[in-house]
Amino acid sequence: MTLVTLPGQEWVDAVGPVSGLELAVWELDGPPDRAEEVKVVVPPYIGGGGRIPALRHTPGVDLVQLLTAGYEDVLAALPDGLRLANAAGVHDASTAELAVGLTLASLRGFPELVTAQSERTWLPTTIRPALADRRVLVLGYGSIGRAVAARLAPFEVTLTAVASRARAGDDLVPSVHGVNELRELLPDHDVVVVIVPLGPATARLVDDAFLRSMPDGSLLVNVARGGVVDTDALVEHTRFGRIRAALDVTDPEPLPPEHPLWASPAVMITPHVGGASTAFMPRAVRLLQEQLSAYAAGRPLRNLVT
Amino acid sequence: MTLVTLPGQEWVDAVGPVSGLELAVWELDGPPDRAEEVKVVVPPYIGGGGRIPALRHTPGVDLVQLLTAGYEDVLAALPDGLRLANAAGVHDASTAELAVGLTLASLRGFPELVTAQSERTWLPTTIRPALADRRVLVLGYGSIGRAVAARLAPFEVTLTAVASRARAGDDLVPSVHGVNELRELLPDHDVVVVIVPLGPATARLVDDAFLRSMPDGSLLVNVARGGVVDTDALVEHTRFGRIRAALDVTDPEPLPPEHPLWASPAVMITPHVGGASTAFMPRAVRLLQEQLSAYAAGRPLRNLVT
Repeated sequence: MTLVTLPGQEWVDAVGPVSGLELAVWELDGPPDRAEEVKVVVPPYIGGGGRIPALRHTPGVDLVQLLTAGYEDVLAALPDGLRLANAAGVHDASTAELAVGLTLASLRGFPELVTAQSERTWLPTTIRPALADRRVLVLGYGSIGRAVAARLAPFEVTLTAVASRARAGDDLVPSVHGVNELRELLPDHDVVVVIVPLGPATARLVDDAFLRSMPDGSLLVNVARGGVVDTDALVEHTRFGRIRAALDVTDPEPLPPEHPLWASPAVMITPHVGGASTAFMPRAVRLLQEQLSAYAAGRPLRNLVT
Repeated sequence: MTLVTLPGQEWVDAVGPVSGLELAVWELDGPPDRAEEVKVVVPPYIGGGGRIPALRHTPGVDLVQLLTAGYEDVLAALPDGLRLANAAGVHDASTAELAVGLTLASLRGFPELVTAQSERTWLPTTIRPALADRRVLVLGYGSIGRAVAARLAPFEVTLTAVASRARAGDDLVPSVHGVNELRELLPDHDVVVVIVPLGPATARLVDDAFLRSMPDGSLLVNVARGGVVDTDALVEHTRFGRIRAALDVTDPEPLPPEHPLWASPAVMITPHVGGASTAFMPRAVRLLQEQLSAYAAGRPLRNLVT
């Protein structure tokens, strides 16, 4: 039988049995049992990227299946000749709902209201921005971007999608704009949700010029990676509340205690919890079941990145 | 021309002109100009209910059009023979999005994360409940209840609707359950969103027995009225976090500083801000335009409650 390692007994229990495969536990924390027989390795979700050097114990490995969508750090450490698959899709629901939650929380003033609650203070009524009637630009229209748009659609918003290149629309947007149109589009939008992958083309894409193009009172929501935003520029634009921001990711990360971003009344920060929810495990289990069944049957694999 | 009073010049500017009607400003704060000619009165949104006695100055009034959905206090003070219309529908978008916002904020731990931000602390990753995969019961399936369900639908949830009486379903739910089925339904749901009107049948509907029927770790969201919930029972059930609650309304309201509900770590409180958003004005203006045009043309009126 082909030997597959999973990063804990709970994964073996949830994923298995898979016809034609033997599932065993290995956390990449030393040599596994029957190291020579291991063909497929699923590293731990948290910290797995740093343990890739442990694959030197398993010379027969053919496939590494990650539980994360990101894989840049793994690629650099991966021995030659291995196939690598990521977990694209597994985090869509969790990240997309966090994006909507951050948007609603920032617009409707939850940080201020939570602070008032801690002071046992019932604040007088003030009119805050609704999500309804807002013009929302989703920047990054891959799997998670579409999941964000699908969740925003019933909120009586106007949706604009922007991707690396212009293309035809879908059931949610009439067309997908190219990133080269951003500067023209930004002044007409109240909310920008950023969910592009971090790479050479998107590093500091949200820079001073980008932020200047956002109207007074508009909101930037970042559920992508901190490096997509020029943090110094964001500090300047939010310092006096000209624009608002709701950030699940920052640069640097974790944000050090002395960082000025913590203190802006116009900025809400959550500590990179986009994928950290109960939505992860069942979706990861479904991916592993499909992927391992395909592997056992010699069918094509999903999500291959090498 | 038929004289109509609106509660401020901004309303006259936004609503008018309406063919066949003359629009004037009156805040019900004393006798209006040309009091004998006034046929339609729109009282102020905030505090208007308490000013109904000012209608003694306008003996020719035929219609009072409220900007609120609730009208119990107005009915009691209204002179005989007047027609009264409420603003049902105007607050749907604002209240429904707050309900979804409170649900996401409570599940994903925003109160704790906001507090950590105020302490400049980047909390370590913990797995919190996602909205995805939750079984959500919407209690009260009128106009706002349907707006809540429509917004929840794309979040990969299972939706159950409960109304005063069982009836056929719609595009969002296969059927609408009757309130008599609640005790059987509650143990199978992770989130309950309460949006019933307050009345004799719903006062303290969410009592100790109701809360006991909710599973450990489940969440109660109240965007209806505080009186729908037995506050003492809720304090008991949330005191040690057996269930969670996110409340836009409380009983009493405002909640006094010494009230134990403020301090429960499992309870998030917003100060009755369901309708207090920018979504209100444009929807109220559209209702007034439709209603006043119908009045001028002698067509049937919407939202009549007397």
